[in-house]
Amino acid sequence: MRTEPTVRRAVCLVSGGMDSAVALAEARVAGFESHALSFDYGQRHRVELAAAARVAKALGAVEHRVVKVDLSAIGGSALTDRIEVPKDRPDEAIGAGVPATYVPARNTVFLAVALGWAEVLGARDIVIGVNALDYSGYPDCRPEFVSAFEHLAAVATRAGVEGARFRVHTPLISLSKAEIIRRGVELGLDYGLTHSCYDPAQAGRPCGRCDSCVLRAKGFQEAGVADPLVLG
Amino acid sequence: MRTEPTVRRAVCLVSGGMDSAVALAEARVAGFESHALSFDYGQRHRVELAAAARVAKALGAVEHRVVKVDLSAIGGSALTDRIEVPKDRPDEAIGAGVPATYVPARNTVFLAVALGWAEVLGARDIVIGVNALDYSGYPDCRPEFVSAFEHLAAVATRAGVEGARFRVHTPLISLSKAEIIRRGVELGLDYGLTHSCYDPAQAGRPCGRCDSCVLRAKGFQEAGVADPLVLG
Repeated sequence: MRTEPTVRRAVCLVSGGMDSAVALAEARVAGFESHALSFDYGQRHRVELAAAARVAKALGAVEHRVVKVDLSAIGGSALTDRIEVPKDRPDEAIGAGVPATYVPARNTVFLAVALGWAEVLGARDIVIGVNALDYSGYPDCRPEFVSAFEHLAAVATRAGVEGARFRVHTPLISLSKAEIIRRGVELGLDYGLTHSCYDPAQAGRPCGRCDSCVLRAKGFQEAGVADPLVLG
Repeated sequence: MRTEPTVRRAVCLVSGGMDSAVALAEARVAGFESHALSFDYGQRHRVELAAAARVAKALGAVEHRVVKVDLSAIGGSALTDRIEVPKDRPDEAIGAGVPATYVPARNTVFLAVALGWAEVLGARDIVIGVNALDYSGYPDCRPEFVSAFEHLAAVATRAGVEGARFRVHTPLISLSKAEIIRRGVELGLDYGLTHSCYDPAQAGRPCGRCDSCVLRAKGFQEAGVADPLVLG
């Protein structure tokens, strides 16, 4: 008779931003042993990696690894290249089309590495804080992308060939930014630990004007919650 | 009226080994403008990256990029960890099961980065020298893996959402090692440029005893061709 493992491990992608922090908090309440994974991918706003470490620790991840994947070597995004990060865009513009901050195939690369680590750990669960509403312009934040990746995982790995089913959990995928923020508050997340700003020149302080800062401010406002990062 | 582009670009994965060199030669005869891509993934046999550069240049790639992806951070393989590279295994053992040199999700990660670069370049074609026969133990060298990745590519990218179809070409997938070697000879490939040995201690010289050296020697013998890397 085989004994079922009592600990269910999950690889949790943690960027340092709000969404992945809430996703990690969801993994904890779901009873997973979280193995936090971040990427040093040549992003210009690398201060988010320090935020990722703070978040992982605060939310009880048993370990936190940062994998270097130099996506700046292939270019194509305002997040890795010397393309100017757009600022002061109206809300309609932020929601429309694929933004300059889209990094080609980023979530595909991140999930691929997460899958490899899951296989090494004997984990079958991957948690990612993608969100299809506020980031409708990112193709790799949609449910059809997640399903396609789960199918790939089944045929791409030794574990999959031996019958394991990998699941990619996306607890935030259909939530609005305000709903995400309220859920984080419920789960006791300290948003002061997170970092959202895309602007590398701000050294960790929010610029308040890039798409990410604008969406964050809008979310806090709609949620009726004060953002601890914004000084009163 | 839109003019079709006269140059078809392809991202070609080039490891420095024989198979990817033959695949790159196939891309050239198929008329692609090749953009060669290699990975510094923490492999212990990093001398293969110098071989990749030689191969890319000799086979007319218009550029060659090396992307750093630190898979050793997640461990799990004799190619990245301080696990001993197996030697002197009988042929049956080499063909059976998933070998210690399997790197979890490696081809998923490599194709994901290739996809990102293809999107940046406006390319729709990716060429990879996977082979389902000699490496039957690697789940990510099988046709079902390649199909699943093509499906993922269609939903993972801005270009895919806009209707582009990405193709992953696997010109060697059903060939034996001997057939691959003969095809490379036909295409004028100089095998002296390539590197196959897994043993990092050999500084570029083949050890002759690891799985990769054994398969290479067997392939050359069956093809009835002399390996320029082996001194007479």
